[in-house]
Amino acid sequence: MGCIQSFRQLCDYPKNTNVHISFPAVCFVWQTAMIILFGIFIRYNEESDPHWVEYKKAKNLSDLDNDFYFRYPSFQDVHVMIFIGFGFLMTFLKRYSFGAVGFNFLIAAFGIQWALLMQGWFHSLDAEGKIRIGVENLINADFCVASCLIAYGAVLGKVSNVQLLVLTLFGVTLFAVDEYIIVSVIHARDAGGSMSIHTFGAYYGLCISWMLYRPNLNQSSRLQGSVYHSDVFAMIGTLFLWMFWPSFNSAISDHGDGQHRAVINTYLALASTVLTCMAISSLFNKHGKLDMVHIQNSTLAGGVAVGTAAEFMLMPYGALIVGFCCGIISTLGYIYLTPFMEKHLKIQDTCGIHNLHAMPGVIGGIVGAITAASASKSVYGEEGLINTFDFEGKFKDVVPTQQGGYQAAGLCVALCFGVGGGILVGCILRLPIWGDPADDNCFNDEAYWELPEDEEVVSPVLHYNNHMQNKDVAESHFTMEQT
Amino acid sequence: MGCIQSFRQLCDYPKNTNVHISFPAVCFVWQTAMIILFGIFIRYNEESDPHWVEYKKAKNLSDLDNDFYFRYPSFQDVHVMIFIGFGFLMTFLKRYSFGAVGFNFLIAAFGIQWALLMQGWFHSLDAEGKIRIGVENLINADFCVASCLIAYGAVLGKVSNVQLLVLTLFGVTLFAVDEYIIVSVIHARDAGGSMSIHTFGAYYGLCISWMLYRPNLNQSSRLQGSVYHSDVFAMIGTLFLWMFWPSFNSAISDHGDGQHRAVINTYLALASTVLTCMAISSLFNKHGKLDMVHIQNSTLAGGVAVGTAAEFMLMPYGALIVGFCCGIISTLGYIYLTPFMEKHLKIQDTCGIHNLHAMPGVIGGIVGAITAASASKSVYGEEGLINTFDFEGKFKDVVPTQQGGYQAAGLCVALCFGVGGGILVGCILRLPIWGDPADDNCFNDEAYWELPEDEEVVSPVLHYNNHMQNKDVAESHFTMEQT
Amino acid sequence: MGCIQSFRQLCDYPKNTNVHISFPAVCFVWQTAMIILFGIFIRYNEESDPHWVEYKKAKNLSDLDNDFYFRYPSFQDVHVMIFIGFGFLMTFLKRYSFGAVGFNFLIAAFGIQWALLMQGWFHSLDAEGKIRIGVENLINADFCVASCLIAYGAVLGKVSNVQLLVLTLFGVTLFAVDEYIIVSVIHARDAGGSMSIHTFGAYYGLCISWMLYRPNLNQSSRLQGSVYHSDVFAMIGTLFLWMFWPSFNSAISDHGDGQHRAVINTYLALASTVLTCMAISSLFNKHGKLDMVHIQNSTLAGGVAVGTAAEFMLMPYGALIVGFCCGIISTLGYIYLTPFMEKHLKIQDTCGIHNLHAMPGVIGGIVGAITAASASKSVYGEEGLINTFDFEGKFKDVVPTQQGGYQAAGLCVALCFGVGGGILVGCILRLPIWGDPADDNCFNDEAYWELPEDEEVVSPVLHYNNHMQNKDVAESHFTMEQT
Repeated sequence: MGCIQSFRQLCDYPKNTNVHISFPAVCFVWQTAMIILFGIFIRYNEESDPHWVEYKKAKNLSDLDNDFYFRYPSFQDVHVMIFIGFGFLMTFLKRYSFGAVGFNFLIAAFGIQWALLMQGWFHSLDAEGKIRIGVENLINADFCVASCLIAYGAVLGKVSNVQLLVLTLFGVTLFAVDEYIIVSVIHARDAGGSMSIHTFGAYYGLCISWMLYRPNLNQSSRLQGSVYHSDVFAMIGTLFLWMFWPSFNSAISDHGDGQHRAVINTYLALASTVLTCMAISSLFNKHGKLDMVHIQNSTLAGGVAVGTAAEFMLMPYGALIVGFCCGIISTLGYIYLTPFMEKHLKIQDTCGIHNLHAMPGVIGGIVGAITAASASKSVYGEEGLINTFDFEGKFKDVVPTQQGGYQAAGLCVALCFGVGGGILVGCILRLPIWGDPADDNCFNDEAYWELPEDEEVVSPVLHYNNHMQNKDVAESHFTMEQT
Repeated sequence: MGCIQSFRQLCDYPKNTNVHISFPAVCFVWQTAMIILFGIFIRYNEESDPHWVEYKKAKNLSDLDNDFYFRYPSFQDVHVMIFIGFGFLMTFLKRYSFGAVGFNFLIAAFGIQWALLMQGWFHSLDAEGKIRIGVENLINADFCVASCLIAYGAVLGKVSNVQLLVLTLFGVTLFAVDEYIIVSVIHARDAGGSMSIHTFGAYYGLCISWMLYRPNLNQSSRLQGSVYHSDVFAMIGTLFLWMFWPSFNSAISDHGDGQHRAVINTYLALASTVLTCMAISSLFNKHGKLDMVHIQNSTLAGGVAVGTAAEFMLMPYGALIVGFCCGIISTLGYIYLTPFMEKHLKIQDTCGIHNLHAMPGVIGGIVGAITAASASKSVYGEEGLINTFDFEGKFKDVVPTQQGGYQAAGLCVALCFGVGGGILVGCILRLPIWGDPADDNCFNDEAYWELPEDEEVVSPVLHYNNHMQNKDVAESHFTMEQT
Repeated sequence: MGCIQSFRQLCDYPKNTNVHISFPAVCFVWQTAMIILFGIFIRYNEESDPHWVEYKKAKNLSDLDNDFYFRYPSFQDVHVMIFIGFGFLMTFLKRYSFGAVGFNFLIAAFGIQWALLMQGWFHSLDAEGKIRIGVENLINADFCVASCLIAYGAVLGKVSNVQLLVLTLFGVTLFAVDEYIIVSVIHARDAGGSMSIHTFGAYYGLCISWMLYRPNLNQSSRLQGSVYHSDVFAMIGTLFLWMFWPSFNSAISDHGDGQHRAVINTYLALASTVLTCMAISSLFNKHGKLDMVHIQNSTLAGGVAVGTAAEFMLMPYGALIVGFCCGIISTLGYIYLTPFMEKHLKIQDTCGIHNLHAMPGVIGGIVGAITAASASKSVYGEEGLINTFDFEGKFKDVVPTQQGGYQAAGLCVALCFGVGGGILVGCILRLPIWGDPADDNCFNDEAYWELPEDEEVVSPVLHYNNHMQNKDVAESHFTMEQT
C-alpha cells in the first residue's frame, strides 16, 4: 500500500484536459495498425466466402444452414445492447450525456476490431495462419467489448477519451486471454458471459477506479446527479438492455434447444428481478418512493446472473429464483454498498457496476457451477447432456460434478484477471499524460465536447425580462447580452 | 346508478399516496407465488428441452425446424413494442414520464409471468398437468400483457402502482378466459388480437376509468399536458409501435404464407393511416397545424384494425382502405369524442385509448368477420382455406359464412369481458386502500418517485444572478440558496 | 443562369405557411389514388398467397424456404433505419424536432406506397399486368424512400409538408427509373445502394436546395443550432442507423454468403469510420474538442461508401480502408465544404448530406467499380463469380473488367438523375403555392405544429419569484401572470 501511495503522489499533477494531439494521434495510429493486421490475418470463413456455393453443394447443405440465419437476429440485438443499451444507460448524468453515448460509441467501435484479432488468434486461427471470420466472430467481438463498456461505467465522467482507448486496448487483450482460459483450457461453459464478461469487466473497472481514486471528487458533486430528462434517456438504455438480454445470453448457444432454453431462462429471470428491485427500492425509501437509479440498473441484474446457466436446465422456477435474489441484492448494493465502497474502500463507482455486474456476475458463476454439477442424464437425456456441456473429444469422460468444478475454476480465473488487470491498467492510467479532467471538472461534457449554447438556460431570463418594468433589472439584462 | 353513486361516496376518503408497506408487500408476495406456481406447473417444451436432440432425430427434423427460428425475430419485435413502445408512448405528459415508462415496465414484468400460467392452464396443459413453454408462449404472454398496458393508458397518472398491479392481475386473468372462449371455444381467428387484445383491453380500461371518475380532476390540469421534449420522447414509443406492428400481427400466424401476408397487410394499413390521420389533424385545426397527440396515437389505428384480418385475404387495397378509414375515425375521436366522453359520460381517458384501441379494435373485429365470411376456395385454394381458417378436427365442416358468424361472436365476447371486467375491477380499485393520488396531485411523478432536483429549473436563475448588479436581487439569491 | 434568376424573381412572394386546405387535400387525393392503383395492380406473390401450401408441395419446399425467413429480420432493421434512424437523426435542431420526426414519418409512409407501385411496374409486373409483392418488395420500397429522406436532409426546416410530399412523389418516380436503368439495363450491382440511393438522393436534395436558395436565411440563424437534449435525441437516430447499416447493405443480397459477407464488410467499414471521424473532429477543433455534428453524421459515411461493394470480395481490410478514408473526408466536408457551398455555390445544406451521402456515395460507386473490375475466378471461384455478379442469361459472357465499366456507368446515371431531377423538382417547388416558411421563420416547428406551452420556459421564473423578497420584482411577477 505504501508503494501505491507513493506512486499516487508521483502521479499527482495539474490536470490538463487538452487532448488536441494525443487523441487524434492514438486514433490514427491504432486504426492504421488495425488495417495492417487485418490485411495480414483476417479473411472470410467458408460461410461468408463466395466458395460457399461450392461448399454447400459438396456438403449437401441449403443456404439456410449458413450460420448467418441462426445467429444474425441475435447479433443485431446484441449490437443494439452494446451501442444503444450501454450508451444510453450512462446518459443519466445531467451534463455527461455526450460523453456517455459518444465515448461508448468510440471505444466499442475500436474494441470490436481489436477483439476480432485477439479472439481470432486464440480461437479461429487456421493452418495458414489466417483468422476466418463469420457472424459468430462478430457476436463474440461485441461480447468482448461489453466487458470494457462495463468497466467504463465505473470511471464514467472521470477519465479522458484517450484513457478510455487505453482501457479498451488492455481490456480486450485481457478478455481474450481470460476467455481462452475459461472456455478452451478449463472447459467451463459461459454462454451469457456471467464470468468472462460481467465478473471480469466489473472487477477490471472497479480496480481501475480504485487506482484512480480522487479524494476531492466532491468538488464535482454539483454535476454528479441526474435531471428529469436525462433519467428518461437512461431508461432507453435500460429497456433495450432488458429486452434484448435473452438474445445476449442465447446468441452463441447451441443451435436448437440451447438457444431456445437460454431465451426462456433469461426472459423469466429478468421479469422476476423487476418486481423485487422495485419492492426493495420502495421499502428502503422513507416515503416509499421509487428511485430511478435502482430501476435503471438493478432491474437488469437477473440477466447477468443467469448468463452462465442460461442454456443449462436451470428450470423456469430456478430462473425466477435467481432473478428474485439478484433484484434484492443489487438494489441493496446501491443503497448500502456503493456509499460504503466510496467511503471506506476508496472505490468510486459512478454507475454502480459493482451492484449491476460484479455481484450478479459472481452469483451467475456460482449458479452455473451448481447447475452444472447437478446435471444428470435423466434430466438432459444422454445425448442432451453431451450436447449441452460439450462432453466431446478430450472432454468426453467428464462427468457433471467435474464440470461443476470447472465452472467454479472459471469464475476464479475471471476474478483474478479482473482484479489483476484492473490494478495494472489503473497504474498505467495514473500516468500524468492522458489528459483526464481535474477534480472539480468531472462529469462535465465541457472538457471534451463543443457544447451548444443552451437555449433553455438563456431564454427564461430573457423571457422574464421581457415582462420587467424594473429599470435596474432591465439594465442588468443589458449587461447580460453583452457577455 | 344509485347504488354506484352510494358506493362512490363510500369510497370517498382523504387520499394518501404512501405505499411504503403495501407496494413492497404485494411485489414480494406475488413474486413468491409466481415462483411456487412455476415450480409446480411450468416446464420446457420439447423444442426447448435438451431431449430435442433425440426428438429431432426421431422426427427427422433439423435444428431449423425448431419453432424458435420461425418466431424469435417477431418475438423480439413484440417485446420492444411492449416495453419501449407502450412505455414511451405514454411519456408525453410533462411530469409523468417516470410513471409512464417505469410502471409500464413493472406491470409488464409481472403480467408476463402470470400470463404464462393463466394461458398455460387454458391452452398448454399436458397429460401430466404441466405447462410446456416455448417461444410461442412468450409471445402470447407479451400479447396478454398488451391488453393491460392499453387499459393503463386510460387511467395514466390517476392510479397508484399497487392499483396497477391489481389491474394487471385481474386483466391477465380475464384476458386468458376471454381468449380461450374466443379462440378455442368459438373458434374465431384473431392473429393480431383486434378483438381479444385491443377491444377487450380498451373497454376494460375505459370502464375502470369510469368507475374511478374524478369530478375534480381539473385541479391537476396544469400537469395534464406535454412539453416539447416529452412529445419527442413519446414519438419513440409511437414509431417503435408503428414499425414493429407487422411483427405483432404476424408473430403467431401460420408459418409460411400466413406470417408473410400478415406482415404485408399490416405494413400497408399503417402507411395509409398516417396520411389520413395527418390530413384530419390539419383540416380540423383552425390554422391548419398538426397536433402531436394525433400523430402519436392515431397513426397506429390501422395496425389495430387490421389485426384480426391480417392473415386473411384482405388484399393489399383492402388493407389500405381499412387504414384510410381508421386514420380518419381515430383522429376525429380525439377531436370530438374524448372531450364528449369526459364531459357527458364521465369517462376520463388520459391517452385516448378509445380512439386508438377501442374503435379500431371493433372495426378490426368487423373487418375480420366480413373477410372471413367472404372467403372462398377460388381465392384461397382448397388447402389454403383449410390452412388459413384451421378447418380441421371438429371444425372440418365449417364453411366461411359460418366462420364469419364465429368472428362476430368473438367480438361480442371481447366487448362483454371488457365492460364487465372493467366495472368489476373498477369497483375493487375504488376501495380506499390502494394509495391513489388526490385530485390535485394526478399526473405527477412526485407522488411515487424520488425526483432529481431539476437543474433546468434552478440554474437559469443562478446564471441570471451571476450577471446581476442589483443588490436586492443578490440578496434574494442568497435567500434561495438557503432553501 | 439568367433565366434561373428571373424565374427566381418570379417566385419571390410573401410567404404564407397556411396549408389548411392544400395539405389535407393532397393527403386525401393521393391516398385515394393509392387505393385505386393498388386495387388495379397489387397482389400477393406466391410466397404470401394461401396457395403457398400447394406451391411448396409442388416444388418440394419447406416453409423455411419462404423468402420471408431469409429477409424479414433485415427488413425490420431497415424499417427502423427509415423511421427512427432518419427521423431522429434530424431532430438535432432546437425547435424542429416535431418537423424532423413527424414529416419524416409522413413522407416515408406515403413514399413506400408509391414506391411499391413504381418499382413494381418496372420490376415485378407479371403476364396478367399485376404486381406480385412479398417481403423483398417491402424492403425495396423502404430503400426507395430512403433516397427521399436523404434529400429531405438538405432542405430540413425550409420547406412545407406539402412541398415534402411533392419532393417525395417525384423522388420516388425518378428513383424507380434510375434504379431500373442501373440495375436492369446497365446490369450494375448495387446491394447497399451507394449509387442508386445515396448518390441519387443526395444530389437530388442538394439541387432542390440550390433551386430554393434563400439569401436571407440568416434571419433564422437563432434557430439553426442544437440544444443539449436535441443532440442526445439525434444520437438515437445516428446509432440506429449505424447499428442496422449491416442489415441495410445485406437486406437484398444473395441468400447465403452474399448476405453474410455484406454484413461483415459493413460492420468493419463503420467501425473504422468512427475512429477517423472523431480524430479529425478533435484535430481541427482549436481546443481538441469533439463536435456532435460530426459524430452524428460522419460516423455513418463508411456504411454509405461500402454499399455497392458490400457483397463483393472487398476483403475485411479493404472495408476498413474505405471506412478510414470516408471518416476523414466526410468530417472535413463538414468543416470546410459545407460553409464553402453555402457561401459560394448557394447551396444551403441543413444536415450536411453532401458530406454524409453525396461524397461517400460517389466513393462507394468508385470502390464498387474497382472491386468488380478486379474480380477473378481464383478469388471468387467459378460458381461464386457467376453467383455474385449474376453473370447469367444475357449477361453470361460478361467479364469482371466489363462489369467494372457497368458499375462506373451506373454511377454516372445516378449522378445525372440526381442533378437533373433535383433541378426540375426544385423549379416546381419554387412556385408560390406550397406554403413554405418565410426566411425568418425557418427551422421553426411553430409554423406547422401546435406546440405545447413550454413549462421549462415559464416555471423557473415562477420558482424564482417564490423566493423573492423584493417588492418591485414581486410586482413584475404579478404583471407576468396577467399576460
